[in-house]
Amino acid sequence: LASGRSAGRMVSVAGRTMEVVEATPEAFIGVDIALFSAGGDVSRQLAPQAAARGATVIDNSSAWRMDPSVPLVVSQVNPDDLAAHEGIIANPNCSTMQLAPVLMALRDAVGLERVIVDTYQSVSGTGARAMAELEGQIRAHAAGEPKSASVYPHPIAFNAIPEIDVFLDNGYTKEEWKVVAESRKILHLPDLRLSCTAVRIPVFISHSEAIHIETGTPITPEAARALFAAVKGVVVQDDPGQHVYPLASHAAGHDEIFVGRIRQDPSIPDGRGLALWVVSDNV
Amino acid sequence: LASGRSAGRMVSVAGRTMEVVEATPEAFIGVDIALFSAGGDVSRQLAPQAAARGATVIDNSSAWRMDPSVPLVVSQVNPDDLAAHEGIIANPNCSTMQLAPVLMALRDAVGLERVIVDTYQSVSGTGARAMAELEGQIRAHAAGEPKSASVYPHPIAFNAIPEIDVFLDNGYTKEEWKVVAESRKILHLPDLRLSCTAVRIPVFISHSEAIHIETGTPITPEAARALFAAVKGVVVQDDPGQHVYPLASHAAGHDEIFVGRIRQDPSIPDGRGLALWVVSDNV
Repeated sequence: LASGRSAGRMVSVAGRTMEVVEATPEAFIGVDIALFSAGGDVSRQLAPQAAARGATVIDNSSAWRMDPSVPLVVSQVNPDDLAAHEGIIANPNCSTMQLAPVLMALRDAVGLERVIVDTYQSVSGTGARAMAELEGQIRAHAAGEPKSASVYPHPIAFNAIPEIDVFLDNGYTKEEWKVVAESRKILHLPDLRLSCTAVRIPVFISHSEAIHIETGTPITPEAARALFAAVKGVVVQDDPGQHVYPLASHAAGHDEIFVGRIRQDPSIPDGRGLALWVVSDNV
Repeated sequence: LASGRSAGRMVSVAGRTMEVVEATPEAFIGVDIALFSAGGDVSRQLAPQAAARGATVIDNSSAWRMDPSVPLVVSQVNPDDLAAHEGIIANPNCSTMQLAPVLMALRDAVGLERVIVDTYQSVSGTGARAMAELEGQIRAHAAGEPKSASVYPHPIAFNAIPEIDVFLDNGYTKEEWKVVAESRKILHLPDLRLSCTAVRIPVFISHSEAIHIETGTPITPEAARALFAAVKGVVVQDDPGQHVYPLASHAAGHDEIFVGRIRQDPSIPDGRGLALWVVSDNV
């Protein structure tokens, strides 16, 4: 299903050629599960209509995530929240998605006092036009031509842009605030102390995150490694002497969340500090 | 002065053509100020020889920075430390250099409790070969050819590599530990609680840093902006609604330290938290 503009186009889905149909409310009659990924406006308008016609909507936009009646779910972290939905289920922002299973493991074992996340996000998070813009700037550089920017307010090639989504009144971007608010909801920690700086860098696919965590009780890096390795979908890559740590270039194309550079944070006393590096394909 | 290998080459210095002379101990006779920037081994060997012959050495390597008899100086921050030198003066690592004036302003006004720094560092910090490696990988990508890496352990194009300098036993890289140890020495805060993750990204010139600071007493973003603007060599760029914040692409070629994205950090209670984005040309 898509907008009327795309209706009639033929697309290949799991090996079958299918015709795109306009996403009218009636199109959801008889649909069991509706995966929505067409932006907040479309979700706000059509998700309730689809739910009213019996479909269970799983929404990838930010439209419903913070609605109290909508479960915001990361499958390994809070699957039990699915029990209470009213026809719409949301998944979080990609930068929150890869953070949640790692924080869950620490929450359950030693508690979370404070979390700081600085992101290194790929252009794929913005979409196909942004990937084309980076590609175009790279080709312009190689050809010795000037770079043009239209998707981002500044050239993204050879740059680090600390602006993802719009700015809020408190000086944070909406992306940074999503990491704060969505993590709190998913982890059932409404008062979790969390701060984030979200930065776009010239990578095509995979978000990287530098994470600094103050835990409630002490934990060693060894114990943290064992905790993370036990979480479904999380892979520990942590042999720095052999240059082994999570990398955007390795994570791209994989479903797992990769975590490494696991070490004690000396700025927190009593062994209650951990520093991490977490990378995941965000597509 | 250079190694014997370069002796006899002609170089242009401030419009004058001069012959490169081998850097023997005797070459420093009659020299008032010797700027050393040839790596730690050369500095360890020759700086004392130059100082013994009356030169004042200003050393850009890491060889002498943590020596108790050597002042480690950032000109705006601790110029008085120059009073006690014994012929060798060190400047810090580039990632520390741009951090120190910003932290000084907060130290003096409201005190520093804890600092977290995550870096977005350019390949120019590694040197000319690394800049050529990124350029080569970019050209290979544009030509549809495979990328080769030799300076870095992984391709740096379209990647974020959390490895700068060698790994220490505590899991930190030497670069990360330099930020901790050098900041403490420069700021005269031997117990400052500071943690860092240092990351190389595909930028040619300028290091960016996401900084999260817990201050001793409350401070508003407005007050912090005024403090930073009053520091010599620091420029506040902070109008996010107009997409104005420090950028690697803007800072390259400038001497100033640019600071922006100045906002309260909600993860610290009582208005004692600040988040910042600091960028400076590192060449």
